[in-house]
Amino acid sequence: MPDLPTPSLVIDAAVVRRNLRRAADYAAAHGIAIRPHTKTHKSVKLARMQIDAGARGLTVAKVGEALAMSAASDDILIAYPTVDALRAAEAAKLAKTKTIRVAIDSQLAADSLSAAAKSAGATVGVLVDIDVGPHRTGVQTPAAALALAQYVTRQPGLRLDGILFYPGHIWKPVTEQAEALAAVEAILAETISLWRKAGLEAKIVSGGSTPTLFQSHLVPSGTEVRPGTYIFNDMNCVRGGFSTLEDCAARIVSTVVSTAVPGQVVLDAGTKTLTSDRNALFPDSGHGLIVEFPEAKIAKLSEEHAQVDIAACPAAPKLGQTVTIIPNHICPCVNLQDRVWWCEPGAEPQPLTVDARGKVF
Amino acid sequence: MPDLPTPSLVIDAAVVRRNLRRAADYAAAHGIAIRPHTKTHKSVKLARMQIDAGARGLTVAKVGEALAMSAASDDILIAYPTVDALRAAEAAKLAKTKTIRVAIDSQLAADSLSAAAKSAGATVGVLVDIDVGPHRTGVQTPAAALALAQYVTRQPGLRLDGILFYPGHIWKPVTEQAEALAAVEAILAETISLWRKAGLEAKIVSGGSTPTLFQSHLVPSGTEVRPGTYIFNDMNCVRGGFSTLEDCAARIVSTVVSTAVPGQVVLDAGTKTLTSDRNALFPDSGHGLIVEFPEAKIAKLSEEHAQVDIAACPAAPKLGQTVTIIPNHICPCVNLQDRVWWCEPGAEPQPLTVDARGKVF
Repeated sequence: MPDLPTPSLVIDAAVVRRNLRRAADYAAAHGIAIRPHTKTHKSVKLARMQIDAGARGLTVAKVGEALAMSAASDDILIAYPTVDALRAAEAAKLAKTKTIRVAIDSQLAADSLSAAAKSAGATVGVLVDIDVGPHRTGVQTPAAALALAQYVTRQPGLRLDGILFYPGHIWKPVTEQAEALAAVEAILAETISLWRKAGLEAKIVSGGSTPTLFQSHLVPSGTEVRPGTYIFNDMNCVRGGFSTLEDCAARIVSTVVSTAVPGQVVLDAGTKTLTSDRNALFPDSGHGLIVEFPEAKIAKLSEEHAQVDIAACPAAPKLGQTVTIIPNHICPCVNLQDRVWWCEPGAEPQPLTVDARGKVF
Repeated sequence: MPDLPTPSLVIDAAVVRRNLRRAADYAAAHGIAIRPHTKTHKSVKLARMQIDAGARGLTVAKVGEALAMSAASDDILIAYPTVDALRAAEAAKLAKTKTIRVAIDSQLAADSLSAAAKSAGATVGVLVDIDVGPHRTGVQTPAAALALAQYVTRQPGLRLDGILFYPGHIWKPVTEQAEALAAVEAILAETISLWRKAGLEAKIVSGGSTPTLFQSHLVPSGTEVRPGTYIFNDMNCVRGGFSTLEDCAARIVSTVVSTAVPGQVVLDAGTKTLTSDRNALFPDSGHGLIVEFPEAKIAKLSEEHAQVDIAACPAAPKLGQTVTIIPNHICPCVNLQDRVWWCEPGAEPQPLTVDARGKVF
């Protein structure tokens, strides 16, 4: 792609379609719904492609993203607690015309959302967030999940819809995930059982991640999965064994802008393009893979420079040459761009707006 | 600031003015010009404040930033090599109406810029980038700097204006920088002497960084300095001893959104707000400082969550409470925002557009 400015983020449309199809086929075969997390692409066009591929609805991290994504779906899960009044108010306003659900782990979030729902004259669906291992958010026990669920049923404007979990602690190779996923399933089964005994139904049990996507059937209590990265994949997926290089749909085209320092070339992709995210499993593997020079190591980033160690390269990248980088973590890279380039086979790259980036909350 | 959405980046106008004044006073006392690097704020309003405080011109990393910043100054240095034709063409176009200089370290960059200048009918100033220690870009010896300078003088459309250096390898406490800066001065003095013997003048010798800003007089060959971060400061500056906490003008206001996991609170500021940049000198010190809870450690970030270890806190932040974070590295944090909040003493915060963010090249 010699005519694109660099650094540019390019997306291979054919690989995106293949990634969406593979996930849809798996989900259909196992009777699991997909509710993709749009944080990865933040694009209405790609969200519509996910819906067209059979997704039940969409997931977002921010209320502002929900507003943007409501152009693609009427059914949106905000997988983030609305503790503060501003978040809750915007979520409730959106719930007047869309099916909006929010995942919460506190009575305060329920109070805040209930007050906003009453004020807006809307009903907001609630999923109770339970911690199945990552220890980030989520109530800590099935009993606590029941207590919060019961609390939610008593708040006007709220509708208890089920349970949310995030197996974000599971980064093992796919063939070694069974034990960890069985532990997740045990927590969910106990929670659902407690709820049933109390007369509460978890209609939705929403979980999933990209690393565990194709093992989701090992959590039979789950009704839907929320993978995000699967649409593009990245070096976290490749080095984790969750995808191949060929499955990586989004890449950075970058130019060699300096070769002045011996043993090194400098690319025009720094932390304002690749982010400082290290590889999740191999933090010392460098800041992404240069596809044309796999022996090179992106050793050091500053804001607009990547210093690439070429000591192990049989042939060095040349000054002025463009190369292609697969980042460690694609989601925050997309978030740095106002627009990316959509590449259909045999066609000129087309600009694609990152609609839902830059939202505050 | 209870009514701002969170996470928001707020800027204390009074602290900005004090930071600009301190640098201007220092520079005036030592007869050094300031050409601030606008990568830190990317705001035309703040660039104008820097010009009003006496800055000679502005520095940018991207040609797109130069275009945006040309609203604030007619004299812009692009501290980035224009090796590729697109960058060179845009720089040359801008040089038709503005004083544009570009720092280069290769004949290819000179060729590219010369071709673009000829095509645009413009003259572009060139600074020869010499490596004084960081080993990122820059020709490697004074002799190489002379050779490139002589090459530049032979290319139509280019005007040799001087030398660029970046002492980015110097992160020592201010009181321990003398030896390293003397080594920088030695390289520059040798280069300037070689140029003089060859009949070439280095009218501009542009250097500087925020860590070395107030020691710039120890590099007497320098004519101007290009600090960026000094306008805001951050935890890199504080932990490096280059500023105090009170000098940190830009902070993230964030809400505690979960306290479900014992020993931890979760803030709504993840890598899409704070970036993954670790502290330069104390990489294990966490992802910034929570001003109200200095004993807390921002231990782990995901895209929209900060997991804060509160084990050492005498009193824990409460669910729903807002706190204030000083990030490790403020420049890429500003770059994540479409707008930030400008806070004059006693006035309501006003939105401030980050004009030059999102530029490709």
